[in-house]
Amino acid sequence: MQLYDLKAGTNPRRLRIFLAEKGISLPVTALDMTKGENRTPEFLGLNPLGTLPVLKLDDGSVLTESIAICRYFEELQPEPNLFGRDALERARIEMWNRRAELELLLPLVQQFVHLSPFWAGRRPQVAEYGTLAREQALKTMAWFDRELAGRPFLAGDRYTVADITAQAALLLGKNTGAPLPEGLPGLARWWAEVSSRPSARA
Amino acid sequence: MQLYDLKAGTNPRRLRIFLAEKGISLPVTALDMTKGENRTPEFLGLNPLGTLPVLKLDDGSVLTESIAICRYFEELQPEPNLFGRDALERARIEMWNRRAELELLLPLVQQFVHLSPFWAGRRPQVAEYGTLAREQALKTMAWFDRELAGRPFLAGDRYTVADITAQAALLLGKNTGAPLPEGLPGLARWWAEVSSRPSARA
Repeated sequence: MQLYDLKAGTNPRRLRIFLAEKGISLPVTALDMTKGENRTPEFLGLNPLGTLPVLKLDDGSVLTESIAICRYFEELQPEPNLFGRDALERARIEMWNRRAELELLLPLVQQFVHLSPFWAGRRPQVAEYGTLAREQALKTMAWFDRELAGRPFLAGDRYTVADITAQAALLLGKNTGAPLPEGLPGLARWWAEVSSRPSARA
Repeated sequence: MQLYDLKAGTNPRRLRIFLAEKGISLPVTALDMTKGENRTPEFLGLNPLGTLPVLKLDDGSVLTESIAICRYFEELQPEPNLFGRDALERARIEMWNRRAELELLLPLVQQFVHLSPFWAGRRPQVAEYGTLAREQALKTMAWFDRELAGRPFLAGDRYTVADITAQAALLLGKNTGAPLPEGLPGLARWWAEVSSRPSARA
């Protein structure tokens, strides 16, 4: 197996945290996006989208999309369990992972892409949309704060892949002008807890 | 069990197609979004996002997010299999389902929300962003066309949940100003095939 990684990338970080929780280490090829290493014909042959992470298996199969790769490793090494133990728990974790992704991570990516000088000239930017996306992310933070007032983690009593998604999202927000606002004690308590896990530095 | 449904909704349609493929029928409560039935305190108690579909289980548990609900039924009734039969196939289908969702369905939703008169006054609209989203959707259609020149379905030789996502996405595009363009024979062949399945009318 070979993992293609991007040190500063949000989705690569989700996978690295997941693998660290599992205690799995893989041979890694680190790409530098600023040098266009994800746009070479060779890399686009692995993933036409040019995104990371990418996992190449020994039989030549290629997997992209961080959550698809996480699921693969969940099956190869079920413990510690991060996707759920029965049909209902798995569905509930999937629901929270998707809420974290669609309502928090994606808006935070969008506000970064559409508002940050980093992307000027690299991608079309529509500042007005970036502002809407940032507002949406803040609204989701307030919602998650209310949810986390009532239980330890997003999907229930234990840390799961849904927390990893929200954690990577908030780290992106923190680094791109959309930090956790004051006055959200439930989310702040959760953030302190997930950030203090050894995997948070993966 | 009780399924809360929205007849014209794209995500509800994904779930209805999935259930039709499985031969599962459920007691349904159909909501009318234009009458605000998804914004009542009662419904927001089930799903704070006010989105559909929502599944309420007999023990009072609530599942939202169409794919989370699909996964739940895949486990309750594994055949016909729509999510994959082993770890690698499940990961590959997840990868293609996510590509269909993130690169095709979401941009098509965005171009609808930001360009259509239907949403004027209901949601903030940024036409310039809507145009970008439509361009991204067309780019994904061209990519999927190339992929589908080489195999029958998105994730391989058989129809899966990834096809359902792409199918619901293209139907939304067709109805909202972003139809399948000419000159994409692979995607057109696939579209004709998935649209002729009995489940397409679910």
